[in-house]
Amino acid sequence: MDISEKSLQLHEKNKGKIALLPKVSVSTREELSLAYTPGVAAVSMAIAKNGNAVWDYTSRGNWIAVVSDGSAVLGLGNIGPEAALPVMEGKAVLFKEFAGIDAFPLCLNTQNVDEIVATVTAIAPSFAGITLEDISAPRCFEVEERLKKILPIPVMHDDQHGTAVVVLAGLLNAARVAKKNLSDMRIVINGAGAAGTAVAYLLLRAGVEDIVVLDSKGILSRDRTDLNGAKQLLAQKTNQKNNRGTLMDAVKGGDVCIGVSKPGVLTKDMIRAMAADPIIFALANPVPEISPEEARLAGARLIATGRSDAQNQVNNALAFPGIFRGVLDAKVREITDELKLAAAYAIASCVPNPSPERFIPDVFDTNVVQKICEAIKTAK
Amino acid sequence: MDISEKSLQLHEKNKGKIALLPKVSVSTREELSLAYTPGVAAVSMAIAKNGNAVWDYTSRGNWIAVVSDGSAVLGLGNIGPEAALPVMEGKAVLFKEFAGIDAFPLCLNTQNVDEIVATVTAIAPSFAGITLEDISAPRCFEVEERLKKILPIPVMHDDQHGTAVVVLAGLLNAARVAKKNLSDMRIVINGAGAAGTAVAYLLLRAGVEDIVVLDSKGILSRDRTDLNGAKQLLAQKTNQKNNRGTLMDAVKGGDVCIGVSKPGVLTKDMIRAMAADPIIFALANPVPEISPEEARLAGARLIATGRSDAQNQVNNALAFPGIFRGVLDAKVREITDELKLAAAYAIASCVPNPSPERFIPDVFDTNVVQKICEAIKTAK
Repeated sequence: MDISEKSLQLHEKNKGKIALLPKVSVSTREELSLAYTPGVAAVSMAIAKNGNAVWDYTSRGNWIAVVSDGSAVLGLGNIGPEAALPVMEGKAVLFKEFAGIDAFPLCLNTQNVDEIVATVTAIAPSFAGITLEDISAPRCFEVEERLKKILPIPVMHDDQHGTAVVVLAGLLNAARVAKKNLSDMRIVINGAGAAGTAVAYLLLRAGVEDIVVLDSKGILSRDRTDLNGAKQLLAQKTNQKNNRGTLMDAVKGGDVCIGVSKPGVLTKDMIRAMAADPIIFALANPVPEISPEEARLAGARLIATGRSDAQNQVNNALAFPGIFRGVLDAKVREITDELKLAAAYAIASCVPNPSPERFIPDVFDTNVVQKICEAIKTAK
Repeated sequence: MDISEKSLQLHEKNKGKIALLPKVSVSTREELSLAYTPGVAAVSMAIAKNGNAVWDYTSRGNWIAVVSDGSAVLGLGNIGPEAALPVMEGKAVLFKEFAGIDAFPLCLNTQNVDEIVATVTAIAPSFAGITLEDISAPRCFEVEERLKKILPIPVMHDDQHGTAVVVLAGLLNAARVAKKNLSDMRIVINGAGAAGTAVAYLLLRAGVEDIVVLDSKGILSRDRTDLNGAKQLLAQKTNQKNNRGTLMDAVKGGDVCIGVSKPGVLTKDMIRAMAADPIIFALANPVPEISPEEARLAGARLIATGRSDAQNQVNNALAFPGIFRGVLDAKVREITDELKLAAAYAIASCVPNPSPERFIPDVFDTNVVQKICEAIKTAK
């Protein structure tokens, strides 16, 4: 039985993956009167008098919402809110098991930016944080930006920043193995969606100076007239020489190629055209831009993919549980660039002696959440 | 230590009352690949192809949202969404413990009818049902009515219909003890908010013919010019003689007085002015319209209140767990008047030999949910 069949069976047998766990009992008259009426009235009044008491007397402080509109689910595209639900339930389980966070999947019946922002704003009083998931670019940028401004709780679009944090963590360690400095590197990012955009900005923030980003039409340059606002901005912030061209043109002489695009678009010839000891992140999932075997044949030894069956997996689950555990514990209201950098360095530090075989920690490495929490506490 | 202190301590010690319970493990690489990527992709695709599969492969079928805008919380008034959260968490615990339903409290940062409707519509794909809670009248009527039309899942405002169902159940049994027929009774309802309005309509639906409803200004009559739309409609559907007057005028010669109003407004003299063997539901909480002791002194023996420390408690927890368990199990899309009547008869049947001491079942009577479920299955 293949993994798809097994997964369908698992989901059907359990009728999904999440349930409610009451933390108090209501099986006697006294218990009922304390957890509910009439006793609960005193708790409500305490919060009505002092809003901050909500963090002491309710579960809000440990609950986050996993919000998706189903427009860009995994690599499956715009499959809608109901079809996104199994993924969001899975994410909720990961939050709980990896970081002890209670997460609820909210799949929205709208893909309109204003309506998404209004809905998340309306439900925010029940939550301590919001993670946005699988919302397609460029809408995801506006949704996140507006919610960050409006809400008094942390908001993060994981497809952007979770990916960016883990990529930077891996790159920090791969650069150590290759004995290269981030600031001297030429980095090519193939893919200008949510992940590619966030990776580019976080690398800039981390001190990388030479970044070129491509979309399916080629290098993002300032003279291209077919770019949306997000891509225009990205073209201004990257590609300082304002080069034009194809992926082959871009990778020539480059130190790093990060694919967040489509299966098979990176060839052995392209890797051979790169600088010595090239670093390859082929993150298209489940089928990468180039297989690790082929990349190795072309001379690369520092290779990461999105696959759980290969070495050096770029898995957002290395980032999002720890980041949210960290900001909830430290009572941080905004997940800033500084905190993302701190999280990336913390993840990297979980592999003290990086090698080509391991420069990204295993997703089950229990140090990761702890290290990220400490880093956020220090950096906030 | 009084109940308020105890309740505050309980809430602080546990940091609220609800957590997430994962139904699957993700502690090995294989488990992770089945519950999350890559295995979950097959589950999402199955739902994308056939929307009904969401009920087989996700937890949606057992999750309901407990939605409040914090505008009419218990008897505490408009205390806002954060202060409402302890009550809604309590309700979620009751749903789980009494009926095995997973319920999530969504407290909304808006009291605008359009925004409430839009928000609940947007989050509906994550839920199998919606219970509206503690939303003030007359907005609650419009919110419920519009959501019932829009959503393909059951929606119920508990303050209206949960109360109405339990009142009718109690009245059916009290009438048996008093040897009176519902259709011959004169029933006075003091209070024309969410509860009073729903009680009036359900009693009409149950065959009561002579109902008079009062608000704080007196009897709702067709010539009153100070009534909102909901009260105007209620004045047309009740009070067939179009009487005017005070609560004393209304109860004179009446068989039943149902108070859903304020402490102390019902006097011994009023009860003495009623027909023989009067039935008194004094539901203001925690302090009733008249205490059971005083009502007894005035000659009443059939007395219900909202208090857990008195006989015959009208507690919505007798209705909402069973009604939602019933409609989820029977895959009912709308909680119709027929189903509410069926639920009321089912609750009444849990006291086979009603007496003045017991004509409403105990809130811990485990037969209640089961009987309501059977009744809904039959009546749907």
